Amino acid sequence: MELSLNTATVRKQWNLAQMIDGCARHGIRGIAPWRDQVAQMGLQEARKAIKRKDLVVTGLCRGGFFTAKDWRDDNRRAIEEAHELGAQCLVLVVGGLPAGSKDIRGARQQIKDGIAAILPEARKAKVPLAIEPLHPMQAAERACINTLEQALDICDELGEGIGVACDVYHVWWDPKLAQQIKRAGKKRLLAYHICDWLSPTRDLLNDRGMMGDGVIDLPLIRSWVESAGYQGFQEVEIFSELDWWKRDPDEVLTTCKQRLAVS
Amino acid sequence: MELSLNTATVRKQWNLAQMIDGCARHGIRGIAPWRDQVAQMGLQEARKAIKRKDLVVTGLCRGGFFTAKDWRDDNRRAIEEAHELGAQCLVLVVGGLPAGSKDIRGARQQIKDGIAAILPEARKAKVPLAIEPLHPMQAAERACINTLEQALDICDELGEGIGVACDVYHVWWDPKLAQQIKRAGKKRLLAYHICDWLSPTRDLLNDRGMMGDGVIDLPLIRSWVESAGYQGFQEVEIFSELDWWKRDPDEVLTTCKQRLAVS
Repeated sequence: MELSLNTATVRKQWNLAQMIDGCARHGIRGIAPWRDQVAQMGLQEARKAIKRKDLVVTGLCRGGFFTAKDWRDDNRRAIEEAHELGAQCLVLVVGGLPAGSKDIRGARQQIKDGIAAILPEARKAKVPLAIEPLHPMQAAERACINTLEQALDICDELGEGIGVACDVYHVWWDPKLAQQIKRAGKKRLLAYHICDWLSPTRDLLNDRGMMGDGVIDLPLIRSWVESAGYQGFQEVEIFSELDWWKRDPDEVLTTCKQRLAVS
Repeated sequence: MELSLNTATVRKQWNLAQMIDGCARHGIRGIAPWRDQVAQMGLQEARKAIKRKDLVVTGLCRGGFFTAKDWRDDNRRAIEEAHELGAQCLVLVVGGLPAGSKDIRGARQQIKDGIAAILPEARKAKVPLAIEPLHPMQAAERACINTLEQALDICDELGEGIGVACDVYHVWWDPKLAQQIKRAGKKRLLAYHICDWLSPTRDLLNDRGMMGDGVIDLPLIRSWVESAGYQGFQEVEIFSELDWWKRDPDEVLTTCKQRLAVS
Protein backbone atom coordinates (compact mmCIF):
# COMPACT_ATOMS: atom_id res chain seq x y z
CA MET A 1 0.00 0.00 0.00
CA GLU A 2 1.22 3.42 -0.86
CA LEU A 3 1.48 6.21 1.68
CA SER A 4 -0.80 9.21 1.90
CA LEU A 5 -0.35 12.14 4.25
CA ASN A 6 -3.37 13.28 6.17
CA THR A 7 -2.38 16.88 6.64
CA ALA A 8 -3.51 16.96 10.28
CA THR A 9 -0.22 15.18 10.96
CA VAL A 10 1.82 18.37 10.40
CA ARG A 11 -0.88 20.97 10.80
CA LYS A 12 0.88 22.92 13.53
CA GLN A 13 4.07 23.35 11.48
CA TRP A 14 3.07 23.81 7.81
CA ASN A 15 0.39 25.42 5.66
CA LEU A 16 -1.13 23.44 2.80
CA ALA A 17 1.31 24.75 0.18
CA GLN A 18 4.21 23.55 2.31
CA MET A 19 2.49 20.20 2.89
CA ILE A 20 2.02 19.66 -0.84
CA ASP A 21 5.67 20.49 -1.48
CA GLY A 22 6.69 18.29 1.45
CA CYS A 23 4.82 15.29 0.06
CA ALA A 24 6.46 15.72 -3.34
CA ARG A 25 9.90 16.19 -1.79
CA HIS A 26 9.53 13.01 0.32
CA GLY A 27 8.06 10.91 -2.48
CA ILE A 28 4.67 10.63 -0.78
CA ARG A 29 2.12 10.30 -3.55
CA GLY A 30 -1.13 10.77 -1.62
CA ILE A 31 -2.53 13.65 0.38
CA ALA A 32 -5.72 14.15 2.40
CA PRO A 33 -6.15 17.83 3.21
CA TRP A 34 -8.45 19.46 5.73
CA ARG A 35 -10.96 22.01 4.52
CA ASP A 36 -9.75 24.89 6.66
CA GLN A 37 -6.32 24.51 5.11
CA VAL A 38 -7.83 24.37 1.62
CA ALA A 39 -9.87 27.48 2.34
CA GLN A 40 -6.82 29.32 3.60
CA MET A 41 -4.86 28.53 0.45
CA GLY A 42 -7.82 29.00 -1.87
CA LEU A 43 -9.63 26.07 -3.47
CA GLN A 44 -8.36 26.62 -7.02
CA GLU A 45 -4.85 27.33 -5.87
CA ALA A 46 -4.85 24.12 -3.82
CA ARG A 47 -6.27 22.11 -6.71
CA LYS A 48 -3.59 23.38 -9.06
CA ALA A 49 -0.71 22.84 -6.65
CA ILE A 50 -1.83 19.27 -5.91
CA LYS A 51 -2.16 18.60 -9.63
CA ARG A 52 1.25 20.11 -10.35
CA LYS A 53 2.85 17.66 -7.95
CA ASP A 54 0.71 14.83 -9.30
CA LEU A 55 -0.65 13.86 -5.87
CA VAL A 56 -3.68 11.64 -5.35
CA VAL A 57 -6.26 13.20 -3.02
CA THR A 58 -7.16 10.16 -0.92
CA GLY A 59 -9.84 12.04 0.98
CA LEU A 60 -11.08 15.45 1.99
CA CYS A 61 -11.51 16.06 5.72
CA ARG A 62 -14.24 16.60 6.55
CA GLY A 63 -18.00 16.76 6.11
CA GLY A 64 -20.45 15.65 8.75
CA PHE A 65 -21.39 17.26 12.07
CA PHE A 66 -25.03 16.63 11.29
CA THR A 67 -26.09 17.66 14.77
CA ALA A 68 -24.78 21.22 14.23
CA LYS A 69 -27.00 24.05 12.99
CA ASP A 70 -25.49 24.72 9.55
CA TRP A 71 -24.98 21.08 8.60
CA ARG A 72 -26.82 21.24 5.32
CA ASP A 73 -24.94 24.13 3.71
CA ASP A 74 -21.66 23.03 5.15
CA ASN A 75 -21.95 19.54 3.72
CA ARG A 76 -23.06 20.89 0.36
CA ARG A 77 -19.91 23.00 0.22
CA ALA A 78 -17.79 20.05 1.36
CA ILE A 79 -19.12 17.91 -1.48
CA GLU A 80 -18.36 20.66 -4.02
CA GLU A 81 -14.85 21.05 -2.69
CA ALA A 82 -14.23 17.29 -2.72
CA HIS A 83 -15.47 17.18 -6.30
CA GLU A 84 -13.25 20.11 -7.28
CA LEU A 85 -10.18 18.47 -5.74
CA GLY A 86 -10.98 15.07 -7.26
CA ALA A 87 -10.94 13.53 -3.78
CA GLN A 88 -11.44 9.77 -3.61
CA CYS A 89 -13.94 10.36 -0.81
CA LEU A 90 -15.36 12.94 1.55
CA VAL A 91 -14.69 11.81 5.11
CA LEU A 92 -17.68 12.27 7.43
CA VAL A 93 -17.08 12.96 11.09
CA VAL A 94 -20.74 12.74 11.87
CA GLY A 95 -21.08 14.87 15.00
CA GLY A 96 -21.78 14.24 18.66
CA LEU A 97 -24.62 15.12 21.00
CA PRO A 98 -26.26 18.50 20.46
CA ALA A 99 -25.41 20.97 23.24
CA GLY A 100 -27.21 20.05 26.46
CA SER A 101 -28.64 16.83 25.05
CA LYS A 102 -28.41 13.36 26.56
CA ASP A 103 -30.32 11.76 23.72
CA ILE A 104 -27.72 9.72 21.85
CA ARG A 105 -30.37 7.69 20.06
CA GLY A 106 -31.99 10.87 18.81
CA ALA A 107 -28.61 12.21 17.68
CA ARG A 108 -27.97 9.00 15.79
CA GLN A 109 -31.29 9.28 14.00
CA GLN A 110 -30.55 12.92 13.13
CA ILE A 111 -27.16 11.85 11.74
CA LYS A 112 -28.64 9.11 9.60
CA ASP A 113 -31.28 11.47 8.25
CA GLY A 114 -28.58 14.04 7.49
CA ILE A 115 -26.45 11.57 5.58
CA ALA A 116 -29.49 10.41 3.63
CA ALA A 117 -30.29 14.03 2.78
CA ILE A 118 -26.88 14.86 1.31
CA LEU A 119 -26.25 11.51 -0.36
CA PRO A 120 -28.06 12.36 -3.64
CA GLU A 121 -25.87 15.45 -4.11
CA ALA A 122 -22.75 13.42 -3.35
CA ARG A 123 -23.75 10.82 -5.91
CA LYS A 124 -24.41 13.49 -8.51
CA ALA A 125 -20.96 14.98 -7.85
CA LYS A 126 -19.42 11.48 -7.91
CA VAL A 127 -18.02 12.03 -4.43
CA PRO A 128 -18.23 8.86 -2.31
CA LEU A 129 -19.12 9.59 1.30
CA ALA A 130 -16.96 7.81 3.89
CA ILE A 131 -18.48 7.51 7.35
CA GLU A 132 -15.65 7.43 9.87
CA PRO A 133 -16.67 5.65 13.07
CA LEU A 134 -14.87 7.43 15.89
CA HIS A 135 -13.64 5.90 19.11
CA PRO A 136 -16.39 5.62 21.74
CA MET A 137 -14.48 8.06 23.94
CA GLN A 138 -15.34 10.75 21.37
CA ALA A 139 -19.05 9.94 21.20
CA ALA A 140 -20.24 12.96 23.17
CA GLU A 141 -18.31 15.66 21.33
CA ARG A 142 -17.46 14.44 17.84
CA ALA A 143 -19.26 11.37 16.55
CA CYS A 144 -22.14 9.19 17.71
CA ILE A 145 -21.18 6.57 15.10
CA ASN A 146 -18.67 4.49 17.02
CA THR A 147 -18.22 1.08 15.41
CA LEU A 148 -17.75 -0.23 11.90
CA GLU A 149 -20.81 -2.43 12.41
CA GLN A 150 -22.97 0.60 13.16
CA ALA A 151 -21.56 2.51 10.17
CA LEU A 152 -22.05 -0.42 7.82
CA ASP A 153 -25.63 -0.91 8.97
CA ILE A 154 -26.26 2.68 7.84
CA CYS A 155 -24.46 2.08 4.54
CA ASP A 156 -26.59 -0.99 3.89
CA GLU A 157 -29.69 1.03 4.55
CA LEU A 158 -28.67 3.89 2.26
CA GLY A 159 -27.29 1.96 -0.71
CA GLU A 160 -24.81 3.21 -3.29
CA GLY A 161 -22.25 5.98 -3.02
CA ILE A 162 -21.43 5.53 0.65
CA GLY A 163 -18.88 3.55 2.64
CA VAL A 164 -16.53 3.82 5.57
CA ALA A 165 -13.16 5.28 6.49
CA CYS A 166 -11.45 2.70 8.67
CA ASP A 167 -9.05 4.40 11.08
CA VAL A 168 -7.12 1.95 13.24
CA TYR A 169 -7.03 4.42 16.12
CA HIS A 170 -10.80 4.31 16.45
CA VAL A 171 -11.43 0.62 15.83
CA TRP A 172 -8.38 -1.39 16.93
CA TRP A 173 -10.06 -2.52 20.17
CA ASP A 174 -13.25 -3.81 18.49
CA PRO A 175 -13.78 -7.56 18.98
CA LYS A 176 -15.73 -7.59 15.70
CA LEU A 177 -13.09 -5.75 13.69
CA ALA A 178 -11.96 -8.58 11.41
CA GLN A 179 -15.54 -9.61 10.76
CA GLN A 180 -16.71 -6.08 9.95
CA ILE A 181 -13.76 -5.26 7.67
CA LYS A 182 -14.59 -8.40 5.73
CA ARG A 183 -18.24 -7.39 5.63
CA ALA A 184 -17.32 -3.92 4.34
CA GLY A 185 -15.36 -5.37 1.45
CA LYS A 186 -13.91 -3.43 -1.43
CA LYS A 187 -17.19 -1.66 -2.09
CA ARG A 188 -17.48 0.00 1.32
CA LEU A 189 -13.83 0.42 2.32
CA LEU A 190 -13.13 3.90 1.01
CA ALA A 191 -10.15 4.88 3.14
CA TYR A 192 -7.68 3.30 5.53
CA HIS A 193 -6.08 5.53 8.17
CA ILE A 194 -3.12 4.55 10.31
CA CYS A 195 -1.28 5.73 13.41
CA ASP A 196 -0.89 3.98 16.78
CA TRP A 197 -2.53 3.78 20.21
CA LEU A 198 -0.14 4.84 22.95
CA SER A 199 -0.27 3.07 26.30
CA PRO A 200 -0.86 5.03 28.42
CA THR A 201 -2.76 7.66 26.43
CA ARG A 202 -2.58 11.10 28.02
CA ASP A 203 -5.32 12.92 26.14
CA LEU A 204 -8.62 11.81 24.59
CA LEU A 205 -8.09 13.69 21.34
CA ASN A 206 -4.51 14.71 20.62
CA ASP A 207 -2.21 11.97 21.88
CA ARG A 208 -1.97 9.59 18.95
CA GLY A 209 1.22 7.69 18.34
CA MET A 210 3.46 7.11 15.33
CA MET A 211 3.12 3.66 13.82
CA GLY A 212 5.18 1.21 15.85
CA ASP A 213 5.13 3.25 19.05
CA GLY A 214 1.89 1.80 20.42
CA VAL A 215 -0.09 -1.40 20.88
CA ILE A 216 -1.92 -1.78 17.56
CA ASP A 217 -1.01 -4.79 15.44
CA LEU A 218 -0.95 -2.77 12.23
CA PRO A 219 0.29 -5.51 9.87
CA LEU A 220 -2.57 -7.75 11.02
CA ILE A 221 -5.26 -5.14 10.45
CA ARG A 222 -3.70 -4.24 7.12
CA SER A 223 -3.86 -7.88 6.09
CA TRP A 224 -7.59 -7.90 6.82
CA VAL A 225 -8.10 -4.70 4.85
CA GLU A 226 -6.14 -6.07 1.90
CA SER A 227 -7.97 -9.41 2.03
CA ALA A 228 -11.23 -7.49 1.86
CA GLY A 229 -10.09 -6.11 -1.49
CA TYR A 230 -9.00 -2.60 -0.55
CA GLN A 231 -6.51 -1.26 -3.07
CA GLY A 232 -6.13 2.33 -1.94
CA PHE A 233 -3.51 4.18 0.07
CA GLN A 234 -2.77 3.96 3.76
CA GLU A 235 -3.20 7.44 5.10
CA VAL A 236 -1.17 8.55 8.12
CA GLU A 237 -3.21 10.71 10.48
CA ILE A 238 -1.55 11.67 13.77
CA PHE A 239 -2.96 14.24 16.19
CA SER A 240 -0.14 14.75 18.65
CA GLU A 241 -0.01 17.87 20.75
CA LEU A 242 2.70 16.46 22.99
CA ASP A 243 5.09 15.03 20.43
CA TRP A 244 4.80 15.02 16.63
CA TRP A 245 3.27 18.47 16.29
CA LYS A 246 6.37 19.80 18.04
CA ARG A 247 8.87 18.19 15.69
CA ASP A 248 10.48 19.29 12.45
CA PRO A 249 7.86 18.36 9.81
CA ASP A 250 10.50 16.89 7.51
CA GLU A 251 11.49 14.56 10.33
CA VAL A 252 7.80 13.63 10.78
CA LEU A 253 7.44 12.71 7.09
CA THR A 254 10.70 10.78 7.05
CA THR A 255 9.55 8.83 10.11
CA CYS A 256 6.13 8.10 8.56
CA LYS A 257 7.89 6.58 5.56
CA GLN A 258 10.30 4.54 7.67
CA ARG A 259 7.50 3.21 9.84
CA LEU A 260 5.60 1.81 6.89
CA ALA A 261 7.88 -1.18 7.40
CA VAL A 262 6.00 -1.94 10.65
CA SER A 263 2.56 -0.99 9.34
CA MET B 1 -33.66 0.64 43.11
CA GLU B 2 -31.76 1.01 46.32
CA LEU B 3 -28.40 2.71 46.55
CA SER B 4 -25.09 0.96 47.09
CA LEU B 5 -21.76 2.67 47.62
CA ASN B 6 -18.84 1.41 45.63
CA THR B 7 -16.11 2.41 48.00
CA ALA B 8 -13.85 3.72 45.22
CA THR B 9 -16.09 6.78 45.34
CA VAL B 10 -14.56 8.01 48.61
CA ARG B 11 -11.32 6.05 48.60
CA LYS B 12 -9.06 9.06 48.97
CA GLN B 13 -10.88 10.34 52.05
CA TRP B 14 -11.93 7.32 54.12
CA ASN B 15 -10.76 3.86 55.13
CA LEU B 16 -13.21 0.94 54.99
CA ALA B 17 -14.32 1.27 58.61
CA GLN B 18 -15.24 4.90 57.96
CA MET B 19 -17.02 3.93 54.75
CA ILE B 20 -19.12 1.32 56.53
CA ASP B 21 -20.06 3.82 59.22
CA GLY B 22 -20.73 6.44 56.55
CA CYS B 23 -23.15 4.17 54.70
CA ALA B 24 -25.05 3.43 57.88
CA ARG B 25 -25.13 7.10 58.88
CA HIS B 26 -26.49 8.14 55.47
CA GLY B 27 -29.02 5.33 55.21
CA ILE B 28 -27.22 3.66 52.32
CA ARG B 29 -27.95 -0.06 52.58
CA GLY B 30 -25.46 -1.48 50.07
CA ILE B 31 -21.70 -1.42 49.87
CA ALA B 32 -19.17 -2.75 47.35
CA PRO B 33 -15.70 -2.69 48.86
CA TRP B 34 -12.33 -3.02 47.14
CA ARG B 35 -10.02 -5.80 48.20
CA ASP B 36 -7.11 -3.61 49.21
CA GLN B 37 -9.40 -1.80 51.65
CA VAL B 38 -10.68 -5.11 53.00
CA ALA B 39 -7.12 -6.37 53.43
CA GLN B 40 -6.13 -3.21 55.25
CA MET B 41 -9.01 -3.54 57.69
CA GLY B 42 -8.71 -7.31 57.96
CA LEU B 43 -11.19 -9.66 56.32
CA GLN B 44 -12.96 -10.82 59.48
CA GLU B 45 -13.05 -7.32 60.94
CA ALA B 46 -14.60 -6.03 57.70
CA ARG B 47 -17.13 -8.86 57.61
CA LYS B 48 -18.22 -8.19 61.16
CA ALA B 49 -18.47 -4.43 60.74
CA ILE B 50 -20.56 -4.81 57.58
CA LYS B 51 -22.81 -7.31 59.33
CA ARG B 52 -23.15 -5.07 62.36
CA LYS B 53 -24.49 -2.29 60.16
CA ASP B 54 -26.65 -4.75 58.25
CA LEU B 55 -25.27 -3.73 54.86
CA VAL B 56 -25.70 -5.79 51.68
CA VAL B 57 -22.40 -6.44 49.90
CA THR B 58 -23.48 -5.83 46.31
CA GLY B 59 -20.10 -6.84 44.93
CA LEU B 60 -16.45 -7.29 45.75
CA CYS B 61 -13.96 -5.39 43.59
CA ARG B 62 -12.16 -7.11 42.07
CA GLY B 63 -10.93 -10.32 40.56
CA GLY B 64 -9.63 -10.63 37.05
CA PHE B 65 -6.38 -9.41 35.49
CA PHE B 66 -5.99 -12.78 33.81
CA THR B 67 -3.08 -11.52 31.75
CA ALA B 68 -0.98 -10.87 34.86
CA LYS B 69 1.45 -13.47 36.26
CA ASP B 70 -0.24 -14.36 39.56
CA TRP B 71 -3.78 -14.44 38.19
CA ARG B 72 -4.63 -17.90 39.46
CA ASP B 73 -3.78 -17.45 43.12
CA ASP B 74 -5.10 -13.95 43.17
CA ASN B 75 -8.48 -14.98 41.82
CA ARG B 76 -8.67 -17.91 44.18
CA ARG B 77 -8.17 -15.54 47.10
CA ALA B 78 -10.71 -13.11 45.64
CA ILE B 79 -13.34 -15.85 45.47
CA GLU B 80 -12.67 -16.83 49.08
CA GLU B 81 -12.95 -13.23 50.22
CA ALA B 82 -16.16 -12.69 48.27
CA HIS B 83 -17.58 -15.84 49.85
CA GLU B 84 -16.52 -14.73 53.31
CA LEU B 85 -18.15 -11.32 52.86
CA GLY B 86 -21.32 -12.81 51.38
CA ALA B 87 -20.86 -10.64 48.28
CA GLN B 88 -23.59 -10.85 45.65
CA CYS B 89 -20.85 -11.16 43.03
CA LEU B 90 -17.14 -10.91 42.42
CA VAL B 91 -16.52 -8.20 39.83
CA LEU B 92 -13.96 -9.18 37.19
CA VAL B 93 -11.81 -6.49 35.60
CA VAL B 94 -10.31 -8.93 33.18
CA GLY B 95 -6.96 -7.34 32.36
CA GLY B 96 -5.42 -5.66 29.35
CA LEU B 97 -2.57 -6.52 27.03
CA PRO B 98 0.44 -8.24 28.60
CA ALA B 99 3.47 -5.92 28.78
CA GLY B 100 4.96 -5.39 25.33
CA SER B 101 2.21 -7.31 23.55
CA LYS B 102 0.12 -6.12 20.61
CA ASP B 103 -1.89 -9.33 20.49
CA ILE B 104 -5.34 -8.36 21.69
CA ARG B 105 -6.90 -11.52 20.28
CA GLY B 106 -4.39 -13.62 22.19
CA ALA B 107 -5.09 -11.66 25.36
CA ARG B 108 -8.80 -12.23 24.91
CA GLN B 109 -8.29 -15.96 24.57
CA GLN B 110 -6.08 -15.96 27.68
CA ILE B 111 -8.81 -14.09 29.56
CA LYS B 112 -11.53 -16.50 28.51
CA ASP B 113 -9.38 -19.47 29.50
CA GLY B 114 -8.66 -17.84 32.85
CA ILE B 115 -12.32 -17.26 33.60
CA ALA B 116 -13.12 -20.83 32.63
CA ALA B 117 -10.38 -22.06 34.96
CA ILE B 118 -11.65 -20.26 38.06
CA LEU B 119 -15.35 -20.70 37.39
CA PRO B 120 -15.65 -24.14 39.06
CA GLU B 121 -14.19 -22.76 42.29
CA ALA B 122 -16.53 -19.78 42.12
CA ARG B 123 -19.51 -22.06 41.66
CA LYS B 124 -18.43 -24.21 44.56
CA ALA B 125 -18.14 -21.11 46.77
CA LYS B 126 -21.50 -19.85 45.43
CA VAL B 127 -19.86 -16.62 44.29
CA PRO B 128 -21.27 -15.46 40.94
CA LEU B 129 -18.59 -13.97 38.68
CA ALA B 130 -19.51 -10.66 37.06
CA ILE B 131 -17.50 -9.76 33.97
CA GLU B 132 -17.33 -5.99 33.73
CA PRO B 133 -16.82 -4.83 30.16
CA LEU B 134 -14.64 -1.72 30.37
CA HIS B 135 -14.71 1.25 28.04
CA PRO B 136 -12.67 0.65 24.87
CA MET B 137 -10.31 3.46 25.90
CA GLN B 138 -9.14 1.16 28.71
CA ALA B 139 -8.55 -1.87 26.50
CA ALA B 140 -4.75 -1.68 26.52
CA GLU B 141 -4.19 -1.32 30.25
CA ARG B 142 -7.18 -2.73 32.10
CA ALA B 143 -9.63 -4.88 30.17
CA CYS B 144 -9.78 -6.42 26.70
CA ILE B 145 -13.47 -7.19 27.22
CA ASN B 146 -15.09 -4.00 26.00
CA THR B 147 -18.73 -4.54 25.16
CA LEU B 148 -21.68 -6.26 26.78
CA GLU B 149 -22.09 -8.34 23.64
CA GLN B 150 -18.55 -9.66 23.93
CA ALA B 151 -18.99 -10.40 27.65
CA LEU B 152 -22.32 -12.14 27.11
CA ASP B 153 -20.86 -14.30 24.34
CA ILE B 154 -18.35 -15.54 26.90
CA CYS B 155 -21.09 -16.11 29.48
CA ASP B 156 -23.08 -18.13 26.98
CA GLU B 157 -20.06 -20.23 26.27
CA LEU B 158 -19.27 -20.87 29.94
CA GLY B 159 -22.75 -21.55 31.29
CA GLU B 160 -23.91 -21.17 34.88
CA GLY B 161 -22.48 -19.02 37.65
CA ILE B 162 -21.33 -16.14 35.50
CA GLY B 163 -22.83 -12.86 34.31
CA VAL B 164 -22.00 -9.20 33.79
CA ALA B 165 -21.58 -6.01 35.77
CA CYS B 166 -23.16 -3.28 33.68
CA ASP B 167 -21.48 0.06 34.40
CA VAL B 168 -23.06 2.94 32.51
CA TYR B 169 -19.70 4.71 32.25
CA HIS B 170 -18.29 1.93 30.12
CA VAL B 171 -21.29 1.13 27.96
CA TRP B 172 -23.44 4.26 27.56
CA TRP B 173 -22.14 4.90 24.03
CA ASP B 174 -22.88 1.39 22.72
CA PRO B 175 -25.42 1.33 19.88
CA LYS B 176 -26.36 -2.20 20.95
CA LEU B 177 -26.83 -1.36 24.63
CA ALA B 178 -30.61 -1.79 24.88
CA GLN B 179 -30.47 -5.01 22.91
CA GLN B 180 -27.65 -6.51 24.98
CA ILE B 181 -29.18 -5.55 28.34
CA LYS B 182 -32.33 -7.33 27.24
CA ARG B 183 -30.27 -10.30 26.13
CA ALA B 184 -28.49 -10.42 29.50
CA GLY B 185 -31.76 -10.61 31.38
CA LYS B 186 -32.16 -11.23 35.05
CA LYS B 187 -29.89 -14.26 34.92
CA ARG B 188 -26.79 -12.48 33.66
CA LEU B 189 -27.27 -8.97 35.11
CA LEU B 190 -25.39 -9.28 38.37
CA ALA B 191 -24.62 -5.65 39.10
CA TYR B 192 -25.57 -2.19 37.86
CA HIS B 193 -23.06 0.63 38.35
CA ILE B 194 -23.84 4.30 37.89
CA CYS B 195 -22.04 7.63 37.57
CA ASP B 196 -21.91 10.01 34.59
CA TRP B 197 -19.79 10.78 31.52
CA LEU B 198 -18.45 14.32 31.63
CA SER B 199 -18.16 16.28 28.42
CA PRO B 200 -15.35 17.07 27.98
CA THR B 201 -13.57 14.29 29.87
CA ARG B 202 -10.11 15.32 31.04
CA ASP B 203 -8.61 11.97 31.96
CA LEU B 204 -9.09 8.44 30.65
CA LEU B 205 -9.39 6.86 34.08
CA ASN B 206 -10.21 9.23 36.91
CA ASP B 207 -12.57 11.88 35.59
CA ARG B 208 -15.98 10.34 36.10
CA GLY B 209 -18.92 12.56 36.89
CA MET B 210 -21.66 12.53 39.53
CA MET B 211 -25.03 11.39 38.22
CA GLY B 212 -26.71 14.31 36.48
CA ASP B 213 -23.49 16.18 35.68
CA GLY B 214 -22.83 14.47 32.36
CA VAL B 215 -24.45 13.25 29.16
CA ILE B 216 -25.72 9.79 30.10
CA ASP B 217 -29.48 9.30 30.04
CA LEU B 218 -29.49 7.36 33.31
CA PRO B 219 -33.27 6.95 33.73
CA LEU B 220 -33.47 5.43 30.25
CA ILE B 221 -30.72 2.89 30.86
CA ARG B 222 -32.20 2.10 34.26
CA SER B 223 -35.54 1.41 32.62
CA TRP B 224 -33.87 -1.12 30.32
CA VAL B 225 -32.12 -2.79 33.24
CA GLU B 226 -35.36 -2.97 35.20
CA SER B 227 -37.30 -4.29 32.21
CA ALA B 228 -34.69 -7.03 31.88
CA GLY B 229 -35.66 -8.18 35.37
CA TYR B 230 -32.79 -6.81 37.45
CA GLN B 231 -33.84 -6.38 41.06
CA GLY B 232 -30.55 -5.48 42.69
CA PHE B 233 -29.05 -2.22 43.87
CA GLN B 234 -27.66 0.62 41.81
CA GLU B 235 -24.07 1.03 42.85
CA VAL B 236 -22.43 4.43 42.62
CA GLU B 237 -18.82 4.21 41.47
CA ILE B 238 -17.04 7.49 40.80
CA PHE B 239 -13.30 7.79 40.16
CA SER B 240 -12.68 11.51 40.30
CA GLU B 241 -9.21 12.82 40.95
CA LEU B 242 -10.19 16.36 40.03
CA ASP B 243 -13.44 16.75 41.92
CA TRP B 244 -15.20 14.21 44.15
CA TRP B 245 -12.08 12.73 45.72
CA LYS B 246 -11.26 16.23 46.94
CA ARG B 247 -14.58 16.82 48.67
CA ASP B 248 -15.87 16.11 52.13
CA PRO B 249 -16.98 12.45 51.94
CA ASP B 250 -20.21 13.17 53.80
CA GLU B 251 -21.03 15.73 51.10
CA VAL B 252 -20.24 13.08 48.45
CA LEU B 253 -22.66 10.59 50.01
CA THR B 254 -25.37 13.19 50.48
CA THR B 255 -25.00 14.17 46.82
CA CYS B 256 -25.16 10.54 45.67
CA LYS B 257 -28.45 10.14 47.50
CA GLN B 258 -29.88 13.39 46.13
CA ARG B 259 -28.89 12.51 42.58
CA LEU B 260 -30.79 9.23 42.65
CA ALA B 261 -33.71 11.41 41.64
CA VAL B 262 -32.06 11.90 38.22
CA SER B 263 -30.75 8.36 37.94
